[in-house]
Order: sequence, then structure tokens, then C-alpha cells
Amino acid sequence: MYKERIRLARLHDKVVSADEAAALIRDGMTVGMSGFTRAGDCKEVPFALARRAATEPLRITLMTGASLGNDIDRVLAEADVIARRLPFQSDATLRRKINAGEVMFIDQHLSETVEQLRSGQIAPVDVAVVEAVAITGQGGIIPSTSVGNSASFAMLARKVIVEINLNMPLELEGLHDICFPVQRPHRQPIPLIAPEQRIGLPYIPIDPEKIAAIVITAKDDSPSNALPPDAGTRSIAGHLNDFLLHEVRAGKLSPALQPLQAGIGTIANAVLHGLVDSPFRDLKMYSEVLQDSTIELLDAGRLSFASASSVTLTREVYRRFLYNLDRYRSRLLLRPQEISNHPEILRRLGLITINTALECDIYGNVNSTHVGGTHMMNGIGGSGDFARNAHLSVFVTKSVAKGGDVSSIVPMVAHVDHTEHDVDIIVTEHGLADLRGLAPRERARTIIANCADPQYRELLGDYFRRASARGGQTPHLLEEALSWHVGFRDRGTMQPAQALAA
Amino acid sequence: MYKERIRLARLHDKVVSADEAAALIRDGMTVGMSGFTRAGDCKEVPFALARRAATEPLRITLMTGASLGNDIDRVLAEADVIARRLPFQSDATLRRKINAGEVMFIDQHLSETVEQLRSGQIAPVDVAVVEAVAITGQGGIIPSTSVGNSASFAMLARKVIVEINLNMPLELEGLHDICFPVQRPHRQPIPLIAPEQRIGLPYIPIDPEKIAAIVITAKDDSPSNALPPDAGTRSIAGHLNDFLLHEVRAGKLSPALQPLQAGIGTIANAVLHGLVDSPFRDLKMYSEVLQDSTIELLDAGRLSFASASSVTLTREVYRRFLYNLDRYRSRLLLRPQEISNHPEILRRLGLITINTALECDIYGNVNSTHVGGTHMMNGIGGSGDFARNAHLSVFVTKSVAKGGDVSSIVPMVAHVDHTEHDVDIIVTEHGLADLRGLAPRERARTIIANCADPQYRELLGDYFRRASARGGQTPHLLEEALSWHVGFRDRGTMQPAQALAA
Repeated sequence: MYKERIRLARLHDKVVSADEAAALIRDGMTVGMSGFTRAGDCKEVPFALARRAATEPLRITLMTGASLGNDIDRVLAEADVIARRLPFQSDATLRRKINAGEVMFIDQHLSETVEQLRSGQIAPVDVAVVEAVAITGQGGIIPSTSVGNSASFAMLARKVIVEINLNMPLELEGLHDICFPVQRPHRQPIPLIAPEQRIGLPYIPIDPEKIAAIVITAKDDSPSNALPPDAGTRSIAGHLNDFLLHEVRAGKLSPALQPLQAGIGTIANAVLHGLVDSPFRDLKMYSEVLQDSTIELLDAGRLSFASASSVTLTREVYRRFLYNLDRYRSRLLLRPQEISNHPEILRRLGLITINTALECDIYGNVNSTHVGGTHMMNGIGGSGDFARNAHLSVFVTKSVAKGGDVSSIVPMVAHVDHTEHDVDIIVTEHGLADLRGLAPRERARTIIANCADPQYRELLGDYFRRASARGGQTPHLLEEALSWHVGFRDRGTMQPAQALAA
Repeated sequence: MYKERIRLARLHDKVVSADEAAALIRDGMTVGMSGFTRAGDCKEVPFALARRAATEPLRITLMTGASLGNDIDRVLAEADVIARRLPFQSDATLRRKINAGEVMFIDQHLSETVEQLRSGQIAPVDVAVVEAVAITGQGGIIPSTSVGNSASFAMLARKVIVEINLNMPLELEGLHDICFPVQRPHRQPIPLIAPEQRIGLPYIPIDPEKIAAIVITAKDDSPSNALPPDAGTRSIAGHLNDFLLHEVRAGKLSPALQPLQAGIGTIANAVLHGLVDSPFRDLKMYSEVLQDSTIELLDAGRLSFASASSVTLTREVYRRFLYNLDRYRSRLLLRPQEISNHPEILRRLGLITINTALECDIYGNVNSTHVGGTHMMNGIGGSGDFARNAHLSVFVTKSVAKGGDVSSIVPMVAHVDHTEHDVDIIVTEHGLADLRGLAPRERARTIIANCADPQYRELLGDYFRRASARGGQTPHLLEEALSWHVGFRDRGTMQPAQALAA
């Protein structure tokens, strides 16, 4: 059964158990694993590693594309296998260890990990572990539902373990476009000028001698955990749609807009979902992850092409997609994340980027990662790659969290991931702040008036007025700037103590 | 005399006085002026504007390449001509008005202003005012000592005023390389793959009908105000040289390093100066401004080519350069700042970038702009363009300021311009912190040990230890994080009160 998927016959005797394959990975090694936003991760070798760690010392540096599914990060963290982790994660157990200082987490722009590997800025990959649909007659690896950093890991590693997942339909072949920038100083322009353009190969071209082990698996990706749209996210989508329509009417955008990017998660997914009923047509995506909304937009005929690095769907849509690939094949492409997130291409294409903020401050600086300014949530992911180089950089968030005890609009964010320079538009369920061409004081008035929740609007206005009286390009009362966060930490709410007493 | 500089004869009758030319600029207009780091600014029309403002309402939006010399920003600010200003400035009077909230200052990545103009994200330029050496037979404008945004302003504006500066030698012709990305969605790759490559024209190609006035001037650029190297900056240069040498010996860099960028100012200039006595050879620069150190490196034979957007020199070096252009002509090139700072090219070339920090925090976030977190110094300039896309992003600063009362290494920067993701190396006179591949807690230990001044080292270590005990990826004591800045503001020192009493 699996032999038809290993088309280079001399590799057939590389098929081993997950435990045998995992034995190639030794204590202290750097391991590059496939997987991007829960899609296309390895399904067996990670668990074999965790089992082995129970009987011998085994601590590794684990690099991936982005987050893993199937509880891999949880199991590896519990088994204490992960000493260092990069460039992204989203697992509760691993997160706890990161925030306890037990796992060193290097939070990176997703376009940069491979750049740093290739130039020797970070330790080289000893072993790559990559999920595949099949191996070609020349030993090329055909990835599954994500490309992420798999291609680069496989090409840069000394040894490669391939997991062939029989649950992944062979029809995924042809969906990938594998290409990289060459090593400096001889790098040429990347020839990509449109989301639908193919510039590479449909498989990862490696020397088959590097394939040290092949493991056969049969397990699905973990489903997306994005929640369905609710009143708040629908309202955010509505404000953004109205704004884009206004830009089209003003002649600043065509009805096809610009290529779209949307970050992973509930709000960005809902915003894209909102485009199903929009008047825009012939939309294209150039994103890092395709979610349910992408499939809905393709089904609705709104979207004519989608390029990304992974496909992460809820259980129902996953089945529909994976077993009807012929319906989508000509309108989808999966690329290495170095290409999906590359500044060169992003700046050239001029995207409308939609990413989720944990909190924004009144001047439009965005915190995407650190709860309370200190505790890592998931990581910056691709948001910096996209926001910095966007035609129009949009950040979305609900105006409050924790039942209203946390305002997502604060005097000063407690951690900065995106500076005001990289934030054009902020949208909450209350409205949209168009910050283009505005100075910080103007940004503050717009954000407070349009985005803040009414219960925090006057408090923010009061802070801004008192700070402005002291002067500055970006007025602040430093002794008070982070007091909202301290208030939530110590009293469970950002509302001031006297308001509670009243 | 001037007629030989206006080679399209029918433009001869466009020559008018500065006052007549300035009359084209009316209240409420957006004006794009040449000038980048004090080089190639207009010498007469700005003053005519200031004079007119004494007798009639005249408030404009002023865009430039970067900072202006010749007190232009001072005079225009005093005359209340500037309502809005972008994307950079460095004048004390204008700065005062910006920080008082009287002038709206839009601080931008220098690569982005023209991108935003071209796509209609910010208000269009009504009139461009551009300094030139000459006008070609076809009406093309030959810039002087900077290109900056002049070419784009001239091409996008409805009307163009050209100032022909007779003090600028005609030999500057041929030094420029004018080229732009085309408007999206039809943008092609920018073909530049090496600092020395020419991809454009030696003049700004505009419809000569747009040239509405020509003013003849004869005035030098303001000299650079960079200070000569001192013991501290020499020490910073030494640490960086040692590190680069180590990288070469480890095979991570060639003896030609990677193309160099250095920000404007005393420290970066001194660091480059330090390379004169280094073992590196065949160095190249791909920077935004060429300073005295560039000329010294060329003279010393260390540097084989330098590409930038302007030349800003001290008085003595300026004369030497301007009247010996034949010595330098084949080894220099001036480009539009959209090209000198373009993410596509920077990421492709893989620069070593050297920029100055106002302050860094223990996790390696950098404040380049806001004194005390609130008051604008100059602006982010190109530092974000370069640091984000660098092969190796270096930030330099002296470890203390104000005679030791301010530590440049603080628990938390009071304003973030560059996040930890974009900062690889920090250097002070005490040493160098190599932050590549490190998690925030590791970054903190390295920065405190290597970069902090001894008088603040224990205080920083104490903060970090107490914060770490509370947990987090990026541990902080939010109630204390900005207290050092408050201490300096209220007591004149970041040293704690009890230390002063002791």
C-alpha cells in the first residue's frame, strides 16, 4: 500500500518504525520538524521521542514552521524534551514552561528563521523530520497540508526523516510550489509578481541519500480551533467592509482590492468570512495560512486564487476540502513560509493585511504576543512580516476582554510587537480608526473615539488630555502609563478603584 | 553663467526670483522639498516662503527626504509655515513646536513616504521644490548632493520649482542613479543585486512642462554636525571590529563582510571610521547617507564602493570631496531613498547595519526617537528599514548619558522603535552583546553583563532577578518598569534615591 508512495524503489528499505527513526535524534541536537498552524506536522516520530525521553536524557532544540497540532508540543514539553523552541508555538503546556523560564523560546518573524539558518546565525539543523504525501522517483519529497520551513529544513539538515501519511490523499501532489532565495551574496530577485504565479517545483528537491528513515503514518491534522463568527466579530468585519468599499468608491482601491492576508484565529477568519457577502470580486489571497473562510470565499466565487504556506481547517471543512481537491486545485498554492512571508514579495504585491492585536495603545502601537506585558501567548508569527510591508496594515481586536475588565485599548501597551509606523487601521466592534498620515496626537483622538469601549473611552480621553498637557510627540504620564495593567493584575480589572467603589 | 546649466533653452524664461517662485505655493498646500540629512536642500525658496508668511496666512504640509540644513526647518517653524511635517527632521526649533503639539509630525520609515504618496494613502504633493546642478536638454533634473525623495516628488507633483545651485560643481552630473518601482499591481522585481549596480538614469525624467519656475542660487550645504571620535566611540568601534573579525575567522563572514549601512551621527560615523585600521578589505556600503568616514575609507582603500541617497560631510571634507569628484566618481552612487532603503533590496543584499540607539532595554528593544518616552528627538529615519531586513542588525550607544545620570540600558524602554526581533547586536563602550538565537531571559543576562555601565549593572540585575521570579517570557515588574525614567525626570538621575542618600 505505502510502496506506491515511495517511488524511488531503493528507499523502500528505509522504512522503519517511529522508534527506530527517532533513534537518529540524539540529546543536544537541533531538530527541524514540519508543521505550520497545526497543518502537516509529523504524526509519529515526536511521540517516539517523548517515549524515549522517559528512559534516557534527551533535550533538543525544536524548530518548526509555526505551531504544531496533535498535542505534539504538549507531549514533548511534558516529557521535557524541548530545551529550546522556535519560531512559534501555541500550546498551553509548552507556554507554561516557556513562561516559567524552563524552555527558552525564541519568538521570530516567520520569514526569518530559515534566513538565519542559511547564513549560520543560529545553530544548524541536525535532523529534519518532514511529513509527506509521497516521495518522487528522484527522491523529492511531496509535502502534505503545509510547507512551512519543511523544504529548507530538509535541504539544510544532514539527515532527513520522512513521515509518509497515508491519510493524506495523493491528490495533494501538485499543490506545492517549492523555491528559495539563493545564499547571499549571489542572490537574484525572486521572480514572483502575482499570487497565482508558480516559480518552483511541486516537491522538495533533496539528495535521496540524506533520507535516513521513512515512517508510515495514518493520522489527520488537528482541526482548526477558530471559533465561528459572533456578533462582535461580525461587527468588526462590517466596519472593515464599509471602509474598503469607501476606498474603492474614492478610487484608491479597485473592486479586486489588493491581495489579502489574514492572520490565524477567530477574528481574522471572521473578517474574511464577512467578505462573502461583499461587493468585491476577483479577490486574491497571498497569506501564510488558509482557513475555513478561504474555502467559503472560493466556494462563493469571491476569491479567484489563494496562495499560502498551510491549510488549517475545522474538521468538517477539512474533509470537504481534502476529498474534493479537484474543485480547488487550480485556485490554490502552498509555498515555503520564506516565500509566503518574504518582505521582497510582500512589498511588491502591496497587500491588505489583517492581523489580530492582543491590545493596542492610544497611539496605535500593537501588542500581539505578551499577556500583561510579560507572559507569552503564541508568538509574533508572520504579523510583523506582513504588517511592515503592507499596502494597508489592519489590526483587529475586540474592544474588551475578560467580561469588560480588560480594555484592549490602553494608554500604553505593556509590550510592543508592531510600532505605530506599521499600523494603518485599527478595528474593533465599535468602529474603525484610519490612522494613515496622522501624527500620534491625532491617532490618539481617532482611536479613542472610534475603537475604545464606551466604559473606557472617558478614562482614555482623560489620560490623553493630562499627558498632552505635559507635552511631547507621543504624550504619556510614565508613572501611570502601565497602571491599567497593574490594576488588572492586582484587582482583576482595569477600571479605576474609585469607579468600583462608586 | 547659469544658462549653460539650463540646457533646454525654452526653460530659460522660467528663471524667476525666489519670491516669484514661492508664490506658486499657497496656503494649505502640500509641498515636497529636496534635502536629505542636510544635503541637497533648497537654498532660497523656503526663505521666500517664510518672508511671505509674515504678511499673509501660509501654512503648508512639508515633506522632504529627511532632515534639512541651512536652518530651513527653524526659519519655517518660526514663521509658522509648517502645519504638518514628514517624514524626518532634526531641528531644535521645529522639534520644540512638534513636542508642544503645534506642528503635527508624522514620523515615517524613510522608504515608505513615497510608497504612500504613490498609492494615495497620504495627500498628494501640490508643488515640488528641488535643488539641481543642471537641467538636461530634455528637461531632466540633475540633483545635487542628495536624491532623497526629490525624484518622486518631482514626478508626482503637479508643478515643480527647480533651484539651480551654482555652488554645486557640474561634475556631480553622473553620480545619480534614478529609478523607481512602478505602481502596483504591475510591479516587477527591482533588478538591483549589488551596491555598485546602475539600474536607472543619471537625471530625474519629468515632463519639462511641469517646471513652473527656476531659481538660481549659490550656497553650500550645511556641514555635518557629527563630532569627531572620542574614547567612548573608539571603544565601541573596537568591540564591533573584534566581533566582526571573530565572525570572519569562524567562516560566517568573508573578509569583505557584507554591504555596510551606518546611520547618521557621531557614533555610527566613528564606528565606520574604526574600520580604517581593520583587516577587512573590498568593503562596500549600501547606506542612506555617506559621512566623513566613507570618504576616509575610500581614501584608505578599504572601501571599494559606496551607494547612498546623500552625502553629508563636515566642512573640510565637503570641500575636499566636492572639488575632487574625479577621485571618487567611479566608486560612489546616489539613489532615491526608496531604493537605498527598499526592503526588497536590503533583504536581498543582506547588510550589516549600524544604527544608534537612544536607549535599549534589557531584552534588546530599542528606542531611537523619544526622549523620556514622550519627546521627539529626530525621527526613526531609515533605521527600521535597515534593521528589520539586515543580515546583522547592530545598535550602538554609549552606556550612559547626562554625566552618568541616565543609563542607556534600562529595564524597559519608554518608547519602542525596534523590537527585540530586529536587534541582533548591541554595543556600548563596555562591550558587545550578541543576541542571535537567544530567548529574552538570555538576552537580558548578556546585555546587562556586557553593555550596561558598572554603576547600573547591579541595579539592572536586581530588577531582572525580581522580575524573573514572577515569571514570563519577558519578565517585568510593570509598576517599576518605567521608574528609572520617572526618577530622571523628577530627581535628575536614574540612580535610586537611597543610593544618592548613601
